[in-house]
Amino acid sequence: MSEIEAGGRRRRKGSRPDAGGGIRKVNYRQLRNPFPPVSVFTPDRVEAMHRTSLRVLSELGVKVLLPEARQLFAKAGALVDEESQMVRIGREIVEAAIASAPKSFVLHGAVRERDVVMELGSLTFQTGAGCPHATDLVRGRRPGTMADLGELLKLAHHFDAIHMLSPMVEPQDVPVHLRHYDMTLAQLTISDKVPFVYARGTPQSLDTFEMIRDFRGLSDEEFEAGAHCFTIINTNSPRQIDIPMAQGLIDFARHGQLAIVTPFCLMGAMAPVTVAGALVLSHAEALAAITLNQLSRPGAPVCYGAFASSVDMKSGAPAFGTPEHAKANLGAGQLARHIGLPWRCAAGAATNVNDAQGAHETEISAWSSVLAGATITIHSAGWVEGGLSFSYEKMITDMEMVNTFAELCTPPGAEDGDLAFEALSEVQPGGHFFGCRHTMERYQAAFYEPVVADWSNFGSWTERGALDANHRATAIWQDIVQNAPAFSYDKDRADALKAFIAKRGAEGGAPPES
Amino acid sequence: MSEIEAGGRRRRKGSRPDAGGGIRKVNYRQLRNPFPPVSVFTPDRVEAMHRTSLRVLSELGVKVLLPEARQLFAKAGALVDEESQMVRIGREIVEAAIASAPKSFVLHGAVRERDVVMELGSLTFQTGAGCPHATDLVRGRRPGTMADLGELLKLAHHFDAIHMLSPMVEPQDVPVHLRHYDMTLAQLTISDKVPFVYARGTPQSLDTFEMIRDFRGLSDEEFEAGAHCFTIINTNSPRQIDIPMAQGLIDFARHGQLAIVTPFCLMGAMAPVTVAGALVLSHAEALAAITLNQLSRPGAPVCYGAFASSVDMKSGAPAFGTPEHAKANLGAGQLARHIGLPWRCAAGAATNVNDAQGAHETEISAWSSVLAGATITIHSAGWVEGGLSFSYEKMITDMEMVNTFAELCTPPGAEDGDLAFEALSEVQPGGHFFGCRHTMERYQAAFYEPVVADWSNFGSWTERGALDANHRATAIWQDIVQNAPAFSYDKDRADALKAFIAKRGAEGGAPPES
Repeated sequence: MSEIEAGGRRRRKGSRPDAGGGIRKVNYRQLRNPFPPVSVFTPDRVEAMHRTSLRVLSELGVKVLLPEARQLFAKAGALVDEESQMVRIGREIVEAAIASAPKSFVLHGAVRERDVVMELGSLTFQTGAGCPHATDLVRGRRPGTMADLGELLKLAHHFDAIHMLSPMVEPQDVPVHLRHYDMTLAQLTISDKVPFVYARGTPQSLDTFEMIRDFRGLSDEEFEAGAHCFTIINTNSPRQIDIPMAQGLIDFARHGQLAIVTPFCLMGAMAPVTVAGALVLSHAEALAAITLNQLSRPGAPVCYGAFASSVDMKSGAPAFGTPEHAKANLGAGQLARHIGLPWRCAAGAATNVNDAQGAHETEISAWSSVLAGATITIHSAGWVEGGLSFSYEKMITDMEMVNTFAELCTPPGAEDGDLAFEALSEVQPGGHFFGCRHTMERYQAAFYEPVVADWSNFGSWTERGALDANHRATAIWQDIVQNAPAFSYDKDRADALKAFIAKRGAEGGAPPES
Repeated sequence: MSEIEAGGRRRRKGSRPDAGGGIRKVNYRQLRNPFPPVSVFTPDRVEAMHRTSLRVLSELGVKVLLPEARQLFAKAGALVDEESQMVRIGREIVEAAIASAPKSFVLHGAVRERDVVMELGSLTFQTGAGCPHATDLVRGRRPGTMADLGELLKLAHHFDAIHMLSPMVEPQDVPVHLRHYDMTLAQLTISDKVPFVYARGTPQSLDTFEMIRDFRGLSDEEFEAGAHCFTIINTNSPRQIDIPMAQGLIDFARHGQLAIVTPFCLMGAMAPVTVAGALVLSHAEALAAITLNQLSRPGAPVCYGAFASSVDMKSGAPAFGTPEHAKANLGAGQLARHIGLPWRCAAGAATNVNDAQGAHETEISAWSSVLAGATITIHSAGWVEGGLSFSYEKMITDMEMVNTFAELCTPPGAEDGDLAFEALSEVQPGGHFFGCRHTMERYQAAFYEPVVADWSNFGSWTERGALDANHRATAIWQDIVQNAPAFSYDKDRADALKAFIAKRGAEGGAPPES
C-alpha cells in the first residue's frame, strides 16, 4: 500500500524523502481565500437589492408551514396570518437577527486539525451532495445505496481539501425512518471530518445530535457549546419554508449546531429570470430563515447561502456553470459581505458524463464561488446531471481543481534564494537547470503532484492504452476505497453507537417529517 | 444555413426575434477585464524581482546571435563582447526602452470592429498556436496542413471572443520558403481579424508586410503608422536571442508592427525551478527583447509577455494548468503592471485528449491569466499535448469558457425592473415564474446560449446517443467549417495577392533564417 501524504496524494515508490527538498508537505486543512472578492454590482445596487429583499419580507411575506415557527415570528413582532400561514417580517426583526448571528465560529471535527473556521475569508470545500444516483464506470448508474455512500465517504475523507462531509448520495436501500442512523454511523466511523445531518424533522435531528454527542465523548453542555455538525436548509422557493426545514432551523439553533441556509433559486423557474431578481428572492428567503434561526436562539451558529443558476428556457432544464450562475455567485457574495456573515456558495454541473463540459461547468462555477469570497463551496467535486447523480470518476478529476485552489492559498516563495540569481549565473545561455544545485535542492518539493493529470507524451500515453482522465480515474478511486488507511476511532463508542441504533430501530426509528 | 449572431452562436430555427426580449445580442469584440488583478507577491518582492532581472541583464548579460542587434545594443551603451556574443545591458538602457514603449495602442483588423486595443485593462483571447499536428475525431492525428489551417482559421473567425488570428497548426505540406505566403493568404482571405506573422527572418517578414499592406489597401506610410499584424518573439531561454527572433524584433519595430515578446520558461528545465526564479529569468529576457525592439525604433508597438510553467520532475515533460503555472501567470501580471506595458499571458494544456483533464488545465491557466490582468490570453482554445497538437474538438469545447469570460465582462442588469419586486408580488409562495410578465418580457435574451453544453436530462441525452462533449463537438466544428458565412473581401486585391505570391515563388521564395 502506498503512503498517503498530507495533501491526500500517494508517495510513489522509489521517491527519496531525503533529497531534493524532501517529500513535499502541504496543509490543505485550514485555508484562507487568497483572492480579493470580485463584485458585479455597484454598492448602491447591492443596497437596493438588500432593501428590496427587506421589502419582500415586510410587504409580501413568507409562507411558513410550521405553527411553532409562526409563533416565534409573531412573538418577535412579525405580522402573522394563521389562515394563509403568511408571515410578514419587519426590517428591525431581520436586522436584529443579522446582528445576533455570529460572524465567526468554529465547526468542530473529531480532532482539532479537522476544525474549520466559519467566517468571511475562510475557504472550505464540500463534494457534491444530495444525489439520488451513484455512477461509476465499473458498475454504471444506479440508485444510491449505503455501500455507495460508505465508499464515497472514504473518498471525501481521503482528500484534505474537502473540509466537511456531505450526503453525496441518498442511500435508498435503507428505509427513511432508519436512514439517518446508518448515515451518521458511516460518517462518524469513516472520517474525522465534520458530519452532515439532514433536517428531516425534530425526531431525526435529536437522534442524530445524541449519536454525535456520545460518539465524540461530549456532555450535553459541551456539545451545545460548539457546532459539531451541520445541516443545509433549502427554502421552497418562492417564499416558502416547509415543516422539516423550519424544524431544522429551530432545532439546530437550540442545540448550538450549524444551519446553512441555502435557497435554491433557478432563474426563470422558481425565481425571477434576472440575476438581480433571483438574488433579491434568494436573499429575502435566506434572511427569513436566518431570522427564524436566531429567534430560536440568538447567537446560534448559522451561515448565509445562495445557489442561483439559470435554466434552459426552451425546456426548463436547470443549467449550471453558466455565465448567469457565475454572476449570481459573485452577486451573492456582495450580499453576504453586506450582512457580514460566513456563507455557502455552490459549484455545479449539468453534464451527464464526466467530460470536458462537466469540467468547464464545475470550474466556472467554482472559480466564481471562490472569487465571490464564499466560505464554503459545495458541489466542488463529483456532481453531475445537476445533482441527480454523483460520479465517482468526476470526484477524482474535480479534485485536481479543488487541490489547485488549496495550492493557490500558499504564495510562491520569494526569498532571495528563490529569485535564483546564483543559479542564473551558473547556467550558461542555451543551457538547462535540470542538474544545477538550486534545482537539486528543491526539485522534489517544488511542484504539486497531480491526482489524475497525465503529463506523458502522446506516444507513451497511447502505448499505455490512451485512457482519458475519466477512465484513468476509476483505478484511482478504487485504490483509495480499497487501500487508503482507515480512520481510527474508539471502538467502545462505536459499539455504543451501534447499540443505540439497534435500540432506536427496534422502537420504530424516526420517520421524516413532511 | 443558420444565421450567425454577433456572439458567434447560431440562431435556432423557430426562435422568435420579436418576443421575450428578442434574440440575444452580445458584443464580444472589445472587452475590458472585469476582474481586479490578483497578486501573489508582495510589492517589495516584485521590486526585488525586477531589480534582480536588471542585475541579470547588466552583470550576466544575454547572448545575442545577430551582429546587427549587438551593434544596436552597443550603440546604446551596452557592453558587448563580440567573441562570446554576450551583451550586458545597463539599467538605464532598459529603463529608457520601457519608457519609450507605448502603454496603449491599437492593433488593426480589416475593419474597425475588429480593431483591438492593447493596454492594461483590455481583454483579448487567441486560440492555441504553433502546433505541428492537427487532430480531430474524424481524421485522427496527423501533421498539420494548409487545409487544416484553413479550416481552423474559419473556426477562429467564427467566434468573436477570439480577437486575433494564430498559426494554429504548422502547415507542413508547404515548403518552408513558401509557407509564409500561403499562411498570409489564408489569414487575409478567411478572416478580417488581425493576422499573425512568423518572425522567421527579414525576407519573410518584409514579404508579409507587403502582402498585408497591399491587401488592406494601405500606403507604406499608412501601414507603418499603425500595427496591422503581430508576431510572437520567443527567446531561447536561458538568456539567448537567436537570429530570426532578433531580426523580428528589429523588423517589426522599424515597420511599426507589433512584436509580442514571450520567453517560454519551464521551471526546472530552461529556467530556475522556483516560480520567482523562473519569472526573474523570463522578465530579464523580455526586457532585453523589448529593449532591442525599442532601440530599433523608439515608440514601436510592443507587448511584454510571459509563459512559465512547471515540468514533471520525473520525466522532464512540460506540464500546464498546474498550480505553479497559475502562480507564474499571476506573478507575471505583477511584473507587467510594474513596467506598465500591455502583455501576453498563456493558458495551456498537457492533456493528450479533449477530456476533463484538458478542460481543467485550460480553465486553471486561463483563469489565472485573466486574473493576472493579461491583455492577451493565448492558447485559450484547442491546444493539447502541450502544444504538439491542435484539437478541433477542444477548440469547440474551450470556446464555452472563452465565451463565458466575454459574458462576464457585462455586469448583470440591476435597474429597479431587474430587481423584480412586481414579479415577486405576482407569483405566490410555491408557484413559478415561467409565465409571468417579467419573465415573458426577458426570457429570450436573458441567458447565454451555449456552444456545446448539453443541459438535457440523462434520459434524453442517452436516447440521443450519450455523446460526451468531445464527440458532440465534431458536428459543431463541421457545421462552422462548412456553413459559416464567408468573410467578404476585395477580389481584385486577392488576385493581386495571389499574383504577388506566384511571382515571389517563381523567384525562389524566402527561406527562413536560422
